[in-house]
Amino acid sequence: MRCMSKLAAPLLREIARPTTLLEMARLSERLGARVTLASETFQHTGSFKFRAAYNLARSVPQTKIITASSGNYGQALAYACKLLDKQAIVVMPNNSAQVKIDAVREYGAQADLIDVNAVSRAARVAQLAAEHPDAYVASAYDDPLVIQGNASLGAELARVAPAFDFILAPIGGGGLSSGIIQGLRANGNATPVIAAEPLLGNDVARSLRAGEIVANEREPQTLADGARTMSVGKHNWAILRDNIHSIVEVPEENIAQGTRLLFTYANLKVEPTGALTIGAVLTQRDFFKNKRVCCVISGGNVDARVYAALLAPNAK
Amino acid sequence: MRCMSKLAAPLLREIARPTTLLEMARLSERLGARVTLASETFQHTGSFKFRAAYNLARSVPQTKIITASSGNYGQALAYACKLLDKQAIVVMPNNSAQVKIDAVREYGAQADLIDVNAVSRAARVAQLAAEHPDAYVASAYDDPLVIQGNASLGAELARVAPAFDFILAPIGGGGLSSGIIQGLRANGNATPVIAAEPLLGNDVARSLRAGEIVANEREPQTLADGARTMSVGKHNWAILRDNIHSIVEVPEENIAQGTRLLFTYANLKVEPTGALTIGAVLTQRDFFKNKRVCCVISGGNVDARVYAALLAPNAK
Repeated sequence: MRCMSKLAAPLLREIARPTTLLEMARLSERLGARVTLASETFQHTGSFKFRAAYNLARSVPQTKIITASSGNYGQALAYACKLLDKQAIVVMPNNSAQVKIDAVREYGAQADLIDVNAVSRAARVAQLAAEHPDAYVASAYDDPLVIQGNASLGAELARVAPAFDFILAPIGGGGLSSGIIQGLRANGNATPVIAAEPLLGNDVARSLRAGEIVANEREPQTLADGARTMSVGKHNWAILRDNIHSIVEVPEENIAQGTRLLFTYANLKVEPTGALTIGAVLTQRDFFKNKRVCCVISGGNVDARVYAALLAPNAK
Repeated sequence: MRCMSKLAAPLLREIARPTTLLEMARLSERLGARVTLASETFQHTGSFKFRAAYNLARSVPQTKIITASSGNYGQALAYACKLLDKQAIVVMPNNSAQVKIDAVREYGAQADLIDVNAVSRAARVAQLAAEHPDAYVASAYDDPLVIQGNASLGAELARVAPAFDFILAPIGGGGLSSGIIQGLRANGNATPVIAAEPLLGNDVARSLRAGEIVANEREPQTLADGARTMSVGKHNWAILRDNIHSIVEVPEENIAQGTRLLFTYANLKVEPTGALTIGAVLTQRDFFKNKRVCCVISGGNVDARVYAALLAPNAK
């Protein structure tokens, strides 16, 4: 019965919500470009990560999956496993925001809380993997199954007519942008994909300039916490190296300003990482002028206090 | 040529954006009901008012339209007239938020700013009507063309399968709820419609109890500023009197809490008036328990400082 149940699990394309496409006139006027938002804020668990997590959890034979994530991937994997009747263990720092721990637990996963001063996330994942030899250890970005899951968004964008001049996606570990490229190309769409990376953690831009993966020296403390990765994933790099059009390095003030513009002119609540693509248009106004640009909004999960402070920076 | 151009104007159903239907699992869990959001926050100009304004501006033969509105209707009428190559004059208090005045002007209308201590809105509208005898004077809610425009949302909701147990809509002047009822019934759908009214300005609830229109003594100072009407419109009352299922009177704290729940569990930015329906579910938890409820979210245009203060009430 278990096996039958597993075979009957819906495909990703049957269960992922289509991205929410929005064209907001006043936002486009402000940006000087013809902007279409592809918002993943209403995706299951509030970010594109569900696409990757569900595809991975559905594809691997293991019924137990371990990952380390204090952010969107943990929630996404928790919910994906719940839907697939699998078990997820999510390693999180014990000082993570309580709402994030609660969310992982509500979605049915085991939140494994660690003191990061005593044990690293990687060490704890290795420890859990040894305790659960039957489990699959899942990366949040560096896995072909993650890329394949995110490719479902590329497939959706490939069907939008007329085609965009550019598709902009936030970049951290590279799972989203490599997935979008894969999904577009598999559907015969050649639209150039540009990545929006925080200037504070510009390891992918530096990697492209160096022709090889360059890592950050420490976790970049950018407002865009979804892009606080040490380096791009190897599987992602293999795609990005030759297929990403370019990278826009976005200063912190433009990430904040992008968040505010989406609030005011698109009625869209986004997490700062989700505003990276709008920040990229602000950073390269001349380049994007009058172009038809799709800005991928990666997710909407942001703490209320962080968001309130972003909205009203002078209200203290 | 002008006449041809007018004949060629798109129909409302061709130009209005379909409402955004969202089912957010954690929100439903919090509310104890199976909630579907019908969000008008991504409608043109950010609220359902575009449906009414466009239908009215397209239907009347006049090429000049006058209204008084410091809120969503002014922006909606301004944009509708821009699309229809008509002229809008929007009477607004001169102490309206600058962003609202800017929006009306950006959408191409004339913002007619008045000192409300020197002249009432109604008196100024009468004055403008005398100056422009060729103009149509538009009510924001009490006009069959407004109801007909809002009926387009009812028609959309009539097509959702399976049918909802209840449809909840915010009520102020009554244009939205009467329109939804009209649109549902015209499409053979008998789903009961319940209105969510601020307890602070509960004139419609009192009207239903009295069996006749009862007006507020003064403009109710509810957080839900879209529902600060003196009384329900006569055309709306004719429909609501016999066809509204009931009214939930929503305390201010539940309006605020609804706004926060939509932020946290639906990633949805709404204006307080838009959260009235969630506030109604909070107010009548037992009644709505496990029911399949459609909560209409009327709009998303809220000042950043007001919203930030709502999100983080203890952050001062």
